[in-house]
Amino acid sequence: MISAALRVRDERPSLFAQVAADIALLIQKGSLRPGDRLPSVRRLARERGISVATVLSAYERLELDGLIDARVKSGHFVRETAVVLPRSKPKRLALAPRKVSVSEGVYALIESMREPTVVPLGAAQLDASLLPIKALNRILASLARELSTAGAHYDMPPGLLVLRRQLAKRSVLWGTPLGADDFVITAGAMEGLQLALRATTRPGDTIAIATPTYFGILQLVEEMNLKVIEVPTLPGVGMDLDALEIVLSQAPVRACLAVTNFDNPLGSLMSDSNKERLVRMLEKRDIPLIEDDLYGDLAFDGSRPRPAKAFDRKGLVIYTSSISKTIAAGYRVGWVVAGRYHETIKRLKFSHSIATPTLLQMAVAEYLDSGSYDRHLRHLRERIRREVARYRSEVASAFPVGTWISEPKGGFVLWLELPGQISALALQARALEANIAIAPGPIFGARARFSSCIRMTCGSPWSPRIADAVKKLGELCYELARTPK
Amino acid sequence: MISAALRVRDERPSLFAQVAADIALLIQKGSLRPGDRLPSVRRLARERGISVATVLSAYERLELDGLIDARVKSGHFVRETAVVLPRSKPKRLALAPRKVSVSEGVYALIESMREPTVVPLGAAQLDASLLPIKALNRILASLARELSTAGAHYDMPPGLLVLRRQLAKRSVLWGTPLGADDFVITAGAMEGLQLALRATTRPGDTIAIATPTYFGILQLVEEMNLKVIEVPTLPGVGMDLDALEIVLSQAPVRACLAVTNFDNPLGSLMSDSNKERLVRMLEKRDIPLIEDDLYGDLAFDGSRPRPAKAFDRKGLVIYTSSISKTIAAGYRVGWVVAGRYHETIKRLKFSHSIATPTLLQMAVAEYLDSGSYDRHLRHLRERIRREVARYRSEVASAFPVGTWISEPKGGFVLWLELPGQISALALQARALEANIAIAPGPIFGARARFSSCIRMTCGSPWSPRIADAVKKLGELCYELARTPK
Repeated sequence: MISAALRVRDERPSLFAQVAADIALLIQKGSLRPGDRLPSVRRLARERGISVATVLSAYERLELDGLIDARVKSGHFVRETAVVLPRSKPKRLALAPRKVSVSEGVYALIESMREPTVVPLGAAQLDASLLPIKALNRILASLARELSTAGAHYDMPPGLLVLRRQLAKRSVLWGTPLGADDFVITAGAMEGLQLALRATTRPGDTIAIATPTYFGILQLVEEMNLKVIEVPTLPGVGMDLDALEIVLSQAPVRACLAVTNFDNPLGSLMSDSNKERLVRMLEKRDIPLIEDDLYGDLAFDGSRPRPAKAFDRKGLVIYTSSISKTIAAGYRVGWVVAGRYHETIKRLKFSHSIATPTLLQMAVAEYLDSGSYDRHLRHLRERIRREVARYRSEVASAFPVGTWISEPKGGFVLWLELPGQISALALQARALEANIAIAPGPIFGARARFSSCIRMTCGSPWSPRIADAVKKLGELCYELARTPK
Repeated sequence: MISAALRVRDERPSLFAQVAADIALLIQKGSLRPGDRLPSVRRLARERGISVATVLSAYERLELDGLIDARVKSGHFVRETAVVLPRSKPKRLALAPRKVSVSEGVYALIESMREPTVVPLGAAQLDASLLPIKALNRILASLARELSTAGAHYDMPPGLLVLRRQLAKRSVLWGTPLGADDFVITAGAMEGLQLALRATTRPGDTIAIATPTYFGILQLVEEMNLKVIEVPTLPGVGMDLDALEIVLSQAPVRACLAVTNFDNPLGSLMSDSNKERLVRMLEKRDIPLIEDDLYGDLAFDGSRPRPAKAFDRKGLVIYTSSISKTIAAGYRVGWVVAGRYHETIKRLKFSHSIATPTLLQMAVAEYLDSGSYDRHLRHLRERIRREVARYRSEVASAFPVGTWISEPKGGFVLWLELPGQISALALQARALEANIAIAPGPIFGARARFSSCIRMTCGSPWSPRIADAVKKLGELCYELARTPK
């Protein structure tokens, strides 16, 4: 290292100036902030393989420049009055609708999720007060305290056995008896969907997918260079199977992706007979069904609808789900039951992210084992049923006449179709200016349909703040309806 | 649901028999084990949307079949003597070398990592006793206890600011001053590498990569349908840049992937001047360099070599690293500094796995902030230097004359070239029969070179068990050398 450093010195005017410039840059970028202690002279010298004298010279230069102070016996600190360039400006959340692409609608939504001041009617997540996060964190805390070496090593695919056992036990409630060996644990359902698509398709392939559909899936599909045939979702009914039948007879579909229980955004529930028809229709052509059952535990009527996986006879249904909508999104724990693709998915999981965090899997397994989950679900289902009904009636009175509002049977999002060709992207932009996030319709379709639709999340308990936001959205709709197109 | 259930009843002989069969299957699969309690009659009825009478009939059938017992006032339980089919056989770890593909060498290695009885000379991970996992878990425990709602929500890309700030602060030690906004947090370095490859290539593209290289990268590249040009690594020197120069002048290389500091498996350190040459060579052709700096903190001489990223002037170097080799592999926390690809990587992270677990990022940030990491690194570098030296001298005396052993300058793996055309895959198979894992050479090359090489991890402190394993490996080499090919 010393020789390398010397070589660098030969090529450049002075090494100490370079070190000083590096640190000045860190101060400018805000990586080192006023009052922060700099690395000790000896440490920086050792780590960078340069002499103590060089570091001392660099620190002297920084002192002369007014950026740092030396304090006797305690080291060097960034000066409180150091001239720091302005940090990057707060992100502009608003969008100018004319310049907007669908992706920008997505990223504006994502950015808004990082802003606590924004009223969260955009992202599909439940307020923490509705989730059993305290209980789960308490379990995680005791596991982390007691199992002092847990998490040191990779927990290789298929993932932790205790968690897979808990999931297998629950499978009787889904009407789909599964063994622990049928599961692969993933970083949430999204990683599971991704691996399922990679296991069944190649770039350029065509897949069939319900529309409208969750924008994250559409972005993934775009990134994977898949062609998409959109099959309409019939509100209340789910994917239009007659339409799918026609699609399958005419296009070389390599996989079909469906959310059978309370799809996002429409909240429809596919009947058991339709699920069976869907599975049979695909198995006749040997086409895998990728089933996303993220909302299956959230039926308003308290039942637990079966997934299409329950009708799978040939291992062609790849079932994915997670705890993100019912327990904790930030734990990133999901699973895949992949049938004949099990080995492929296991291997893909390894080459994509190697493993899922050990302690988080343990905590989820213990939480499921505690029996609290069923109690929680009973309360949650009833709670979100009431919340969604409340949002629904408030939207009905605040929004322009002619607004169509979905009637979900589960889950916690509403889908609205606005009258008079109101632009959803314009509404998103205006709403963000008023610190309200919504999800604009165009991001739910591959071909930017749904230009006058929006998704509204009912994941926050009704409150004056929410009431104001819904009223404001209604007013914005009236304004936009008056704006000439 | 009731109507759907009735419809099912119409189609099938009896619903209760189906429910009973589902539960019997769960018992056979081991999802429900002797002594386990079954769901209560009311709960199962509610969840599956069937009548209480149907569930009662199903449970009666299972009692008659001798599979479950009803206990007064406490419910139904799997009978202790329930006839349970044998669980799936223990995985056979051994490989018959003739039928073996390179991938099977990898999966045998991965399977062996799930077996605590196997001596772990295969996977590149450190024994928990060498990692600061206790301190990290203690931090995680108090965060999970104190922040009762942390982890409820997605922490959207680029990831947690407190962690990105800590990483930015450390960047001065790498000679690469970075801001918090330069980082995207990923599920370990592997997800980072994956996203980097997806950001810079399309299927069918050609990339240049050092050989031998970590097999996980080769599997990923294969899955992504990339073509690979292998550039030799010169032991002690790193990627052969003269060879790379020729490759670049002749092939349409879209990206170059390199481990500049203590590459796995050779442990070479590329000099600063070579790093600069590498970066300039690529930037001249506008080719991105994907740099994997997983082992950069593990120099034996106590210095912290700069990454090639330090020489990046055009934002063409995508830097990846993680805590997996120095703190905890099972936390799955890594990062990418992507230069001009920053926005792309951020978006890919969202569509691949949405977010990285919140609490684990917080714990790592707090650990880094505590200052313990540098103390830990000082000890760890010295410790692994000694361990690697010990393994090296023991291998030298146990293995056949003519065995070439690498001389790493950091990290904790050795690369051996066996004499007399000993088959590494045959050695892996024989070693696994003796409960010893190694990584066979062929999995480190895209074209199954290195047939007589093995990688040996020195991640476990030297002990009689390790000593026996190394001696046994030496004996197996002698035996294989005598076996006619």
